[in-house]
Amino acid sequence: MASQQTAPLKIAIIGSGNWGSAIARIVGGNVAKDTTGKFDKTVRMWVFEEQVNGRKLTEIINTDHENVKYLPGMKLPETVVAVPDVVEAAKDADMLLFVIPHQFILRTCKTLAGTIKPTATALSLVKGLNSPEPGKIGLISDVIKEALGIECGVLMGANVANEVAAGEFCETTIAFRNRKGSAYRDAIQTENFRVSLINDVAFAELSGALKNIVAFGAGLIDGMLGEKGGNTKAAVIRIGIMEMIDFAEKFFPGGKRETFLESCGIADVITSSYGGRNRKVAAAFAANPDKTIKDLEAEMLNGQLLQGPGTAEEVNLFLKQTKREGEFPLFTAVHQICRKEIPVQALLDQLRNHPVHQAHVSL
Amino acid sequence: MASQQTAPLKIAIIGSGNWGSAIARIVGGNVAKDTTGKFDKTVRMWVFEEQVNGRKLTEIINTDHENVKYLPGMKLPETVVAVPDVVEAAKDADMLLFVIPHQFILRTCKTLAGTIKPTATALSLVKGLNSPEPGKIGLISDVIKEALGIECGVLMGANVANEVAAGEFCETTIAFRNRKGSAYRDAIQTENFRVSLINDVAFAELSGALKNIVAFGAGLIDGMLGEKGGNTKAAVIRIGIMEMIDFAEKFFPGGKRETFLESCGIADVITSSYGGRNRKVAAAFAANPDKTIKDLEAEMLNGQLLQGPGTAEEVNLFLKQTKREGEFPLFTAVHQICRKEIPVQALLDQLRNHPVHQAHVSL
Repeated sequence: MASQQTAPLKIAIIGSGNWGSAIARIVGGNVAKDTTGKFDKTVRMWVFEEQVNGRKLTEIINTDHENVKYLPGMKLPETVVAVPDVVEAAKDADMLLFVIPHQFILRTCKTLAGTIKPTATALSLVKGLNSPEPGKIGLISDVIKEALGIECGVLMGANVANEVAAGEFCETTIAFRNRKGSAYRDAIQTENFRVSLINDVAFAELSGALKNIVAFGAGLIDGMLGEKGGNTKAAVIRIGIMEMIDFAEKFFPGGKRETFLESCGIADVITSSYGGRNRKVAAAFAANPDKTIKDLEAEMLNGQLLQGPGTAEEVNLFLKQTKREGEFPLFTAVHQICRKEIPVQALLDQLRNHPVHQAHVSL
Repeated sequence: MASQQTAPLKIAIIGSGNWGSAIARIVGGNVAKDTTGKFDKTVRMWVFEEQVNGRKLTEIINTDHENVKYLPGMKLPETVVAVPDVVEAAKDADMLLFVIPHQFILRTCKTLAGTIKPTATALSLVKGLNSPEPGKIGLISDVIKEALGIECGVLMGANVANEVAAGEFCETTIAFRNRKGSAYRDAIQTENFRVSLINDVAFAELSGALKNIVAFGAGLIDGMLGEKGGNTKAAVIRIGIMEMIDFAEKFFPGGKRETFLESCGIADVITSSYGGRNRKVAAAFAANPDKTIKDLEAEMLNGQLLQGPGTAEEVNLFLKQTKREGEFPLFTAVHQICRKEIPVQALLDQLRNHPVHQAHVSL
C-alpha cells in the first residue's frame, strides 16, 4: 500500500490540438524538472494521427518535438511522447487530462471504458456543455465521470493557448471535488501559470462554457457601436456575468457564487469579450447583416469552430423546455440574433428591461 | 405636512465639467418630461464662471443651451439653468448632485454649510478618496455628509461621460442608505441609462475610486506586452478586483461583496481597463521608461488629470501606516512603479506570488 502511494504518477493527455499542446508543453516541462519523484518522466499524449507534409504527426512530434500543425514554433519537452492509439496512451495513466472538442468526448470515453486504471482520475479542459438531446444539458466532467467511473475535475481560466505556450504570466482555476486535485496543481503550475485550486467543479465548468455566449454578445456591441460602445459593452459583460451566475445557481444548485470571481469566471469572460474568436465573428456579424454565422465562420476562422452560437442554442433549447427563457434575456437574445429571428439592435431592448435592474428596488 | 411631502423636489447640480454636463442633460430631460409633479421644472447647475470666446460660460449655457467647453456639440435641456454662485445654486435644493473634482469637495462644502435646506440630501458622483492627511483615508460621501449634516449617497458605474451624453445604453449604480435613494433613481434613470439602487454606499464609492489603480495596472500590461498580453491583463484585472474587495472588507467592514458585481464594480473596472485615460497613460509609461507620469499627463491628456497614480499613492501611504502593504501587492506595485521605485516588469513578480493563489490550497 505504501509503495503504491509513493509510486510516480503517470500522466496522459487525451488530445493534441492548440490547447492540448500548450498544456503538454507545461506538464512535460514540470515532470522533466520534478526532483521529488512524484511524477513519472513520460507524459503520453494521444495524437489523432494525420499526415503533415508527408510525415505522420506522431512521428514529427516524437522526433522533432514540435506539434507543427497545432502549436508551430514551440518546442515540446522530450518527456512528451505522442501515441496514435488512445487506449495505449491512457492505459497506465493515473491522471488523465482531457482536452478534445466537446463533441468527441462521449465517443472517446466509450472507447476508453474498462481499459484504464480503476484508480485513475481525470481533469477536463474541455470548454462546452454536454447536450445529449435538444432541451437537455449537462456537464462534460459528468460525462467523463460516468463513462469511466472515475472522479473528474476541470481546468478553466483566462488562458489563450498561444500566450500560455509562450510563457506569458496568467492564472487558471482547477476545480476538483477531493484532495487529489493538488496532484493536478503540482503537475500544471509553473512560475508563470498560477493555479488556484477550488472544489466547485460545476460552477467552474459552467462558467467556461457560458462565457462564450457573453463574449458573442459583447462582440455584437463592438460591431454595432465600435469605439463609442464602451459603456454598453461593459453593461453586456456585467449583465452576462449575472446571467451566468443565475443560470448556475438555478439549474446546478450547490455551487459557490465566489467561483465566478476566480480566473475561470470574470477573467475568462473579460479576455474572451475583448479578444477571442466569438467576439471577432460577432462583431463582423453585426456589421454585415447579409451574412450568416456559418459564412463568417468559414471566412474568418481558418477551419476553427465557434462555441458561442452553439452553446447559446443548447442553453436556449433547455430554457425553452423549462419555460424560463424570459429570465435570461441576454442568453436568449444572443441565440435569436444568431438565428436571425430578431435584429442585432434588439439585444439592447432586452437589456433595457433586464430583471437585474429590478432586483434592488427595495432597500 | 402632506403638502410639504408632495411639493416638487428641486434639484441642484454642483459642478459642470464633462460628467456634470452629461448628468445635467439627463436630469434636465427627465424633469422636463415629468408629468407626475414630482420634480421642479428648473435644475440649477453651479458653473465655475470662466470666459469662453469672449463670453461668460454661464451666459452661453443659459442662452445657447450648450456647455461649449466641457460637452461641446450636445444640447442641454432648457430646464438646466447655469448659476455662477454655488450658494445661490444650492440654496433651495432638496437634492444636491455633487460632481466636481475631489480636491474641491471640502472647500465647496464649507462654503455651502449652513446655507442649504436642512431637509436636503446629496448624491456624490465624485470618483476618488478623501485623504485629509497622508496615511489617512476616507470617503468623499462622508465629507459631504459631515460638512453639511445631511445624508449622502453615491452614483458610480461604467459611465464614460460622452457615451452617456450621446444616449448609448448603459447601466449605473446608485447607493443610498435610506429610501430617499429612489428619488435620485427617478431623476436619473432613462430608457438608456438604467439605474440599480442598492444601499451599500461605502463599497460602491470605494469601487469607483480603487478601480483607477487597477486600470493603471492593466495599462502597464498593454504597454509591456501589447497584443500578446490578453491572459496577463485579464489576470491583473481579476487580481485587482480581488484586492478591491479585500481592501473594502478589511478597512470599511459592513458592506456587501455583491456590490462588486454591480455596474460600479466589475463593469467599471473593465471599461476603465480597456478604454479610459489611466490605461492610456500607463501603457505609454510602460513603453517609454524615460518619461515620468507628469510628462505623459501633460503631453497626452489636454489638461485633464489622472486619478490612478494619486489614488495609488493615497492608498499606499495608508497601507504603510497600517503595515499591510504586503497584503495588496498589486496596489503597492502600481504605486512603486509610478514613482519609479521599481521597474514596470516587477508588477509581474508581485502577481506570481500573490496571496490570492494561496487562499484555496486546502479543500
